[in-house]
Amino acid sequence: MMHLDSGYMITVLSGGTGTPKLLQGIKKIINPEELTVIVNTLENNYFSGVYVSADVDTVLYTLSDLINDKTWYGLKEDTFITHERLEELGFHETLRIGDKDRALKIQKTELLKEHSLREAVEIQKNALGIKSEVLPMSNQQCKVKIDTDKGLMDFHEFLIEDKSQAEVTDVIYGEVNPAEGVIEAIENSDHVIIGPSNPITSINPIIMMPGVKKELRKSYVTAVSPFIGKSAISGPANKFMKAKGYESNCYGVCQIYEDFLNHYIINNSDEKYKDIIKEIIPDVSTENIILKTMDDKINLAKKIINYF
Amino acid sequence: MMHLDSGYMITVLSGGTGTPKLLQGIKKIINPEELTVIVNTLENNYFSGVYVSADVDTVLYTLSDLINDKTWYGLKEDTFITHERLEELGFHETLRIGDKDRALKIQKTELLKEHSLREAVEIQKNALGIKSEVLPMSNQQCKVKIDTDKGLMDFHEFLIEDKSQAEVTDVIYGEVNPAEGVIEAIENSDHVIIGPSNPITSINPIIMMPGVKKELRKSYVTAVSPFIGKSAISGPANKFMKAKGYESNCYGVCQIYEDFLNHYIINNSDEKYKDIIKEIIPDVSTENIILKTMDDKINLAKKIINYF
Repeated sequence: MMHLDSGYMITVLSGGTGTPKLLQGIKKIINPEELTVIVNTLENNYFSGVYVSADVDTVLYTLSDLINDKTWYGLKEDTFITHERLEELGFHETLRIGDKDRALKIQKTELLKEHSLREAVEIQKNALGIKSEVLPMSNQQCKVKIDTDKGLMDFHEFLIEDKSQAEVTDVIYGEVNPAEGVIEAIENSDHVIIGPSNPITSINPIIMMPGVKKELRKSYVTAVSPFIGKSAISGPANKFMKAKGYESNCYGVCQIYEDFLNHYIINNSDEKYKDIIKEIIPDVSTENIILKTMDDKINLAKKIINYF
Repeated sequence: MMHLDSGYMITVLSGGTGTPKLLQGIKKIINPEELTVIVNTLENNYFSGVYVSADVDTVLYTLSDLINDKTWYGLKEDTFITHERLEELGFHETLRIGDKDRALKIQKTELLKEHSLREAVEIQKNALGIKSEVLPMSNQQCKVKIDTDKGLMDFHEFLIEDKSQAEVTDVIYGEVNPAEGVIEAIENSDHVIIGPSNPITSINPIIMMPGVKKELRKSYVTAVSPFIGKSAISGPANKFMKAKGYESNCYGVCQIYEDFLNHYIINNSDEKYKDIIKEIIPDVSTENIILKTMDDKINLAKKIINYF
């Protein structure tokens, strides 16, 4: 296993599914102290009385090797006793929260009575023995609304109850300010990595916060495409891309990042997009970006980090 | 098993330990539709983000045969996965809440966003298949404070964290109004039974609500002493009795109830108090009021109901 061990600082911008897979590879090849993860908080909300910061919790579980990497939320081998009892009592719990996972959410909810989200996550990452930095993008609450042919929906309503079936006409969210440490993390990084997460609802909310783009322009930034051909690797990114006027493929994604992107990695099978991408991002690589095995994840992490 | 099956309506005033034991006996000998339980809500409060109506939940679990009758809170055979995980994460949960029990508390907390406590309990008792009426004494929040030589404490702080060690100088609680149905239940009862619960913190809060004493004076009321000699059958009743200026024995208790009590049942071993009690309550019986076995509970229930 390669360790750079060079004080080479990496900041990863992350959503809740694609990028955590890449994080599993990155954490195998660098020291944990060299890694900062800035995590999307756009969909944070209360469910069944607990504050759910879904992407942050997924990153916390990923970095502590507890993640259920079949579903990409919650802990592997968790139980669902409370959830199932709620159903028996006639209470429908929108999110299927595991018993151990619920403990993390209860603790966060209680911590938020006296702490910012940033502080609460700091306490929780320490409790989980994580030595990397985990920064929620913002302490401010900001809900994302999905405008569809069936009407305006909350994000979880669209994802879970509608199962992403509706036609999406717009994705709407307000502006929030970055949490303390977010701008500094990018400023102090040798390398910023944008993982293969949904560009509209996971990465763009981070990028659009005041001050972030300015720092990204000064940094060396690599992005990994979240598309294979016209299909998003996970989730409903293609619907969101179209609603925002972008092609739902790796070319559409780099248009969103073109302002600051230095190196763009697309899948081997997307070679055909290389020429058109080169018109806006000179440095494009093709790699295997389908992250199924730990070897896939480590290989991609090495390619990203060694390329620089 | 005897069933009266006569439309004979019984209302029981209950706290969270002594009276539920008696309820186990009463429910064996009458039809569930003939029983209403008015339950103390004085100590209701939020713990770990969920609303805990401890005595109400104990009565719900008692009437649905789910109660853990070793501890008199929570369900028998529950697990504590979330509670134990909270401890691992460094969050001390004041109450040890089981996983299934937590579901009831989460549901109640969510129901309270749109319903009164009375309505929430109605929904939950139906979900648990309970055919008796269960009425929280009040929909209003009222905290009890225990004044001690160590300072003013919340009730749970005194009971759990201090383990009832401090010397009690006063028990303080504000006035609340009865929930809908409470006055009517007493009015429509053939027999009101005050179980062997703490007179100061469980029964008196019910009695002191506006309108309750007036109805009790019109009813036939039986009370079971919560004392054996100078010791409370359970909990710190003796400290509370002394703080309020009463003797901590069965005589002190009937002084609190003398205004409306028709029949008073004390333990066989407390025969010596019979004469002094008769000066204020003419009708006094001695029975075995130590409720260890189901036979003990059924026998006492029969004595109470058949005496009338």
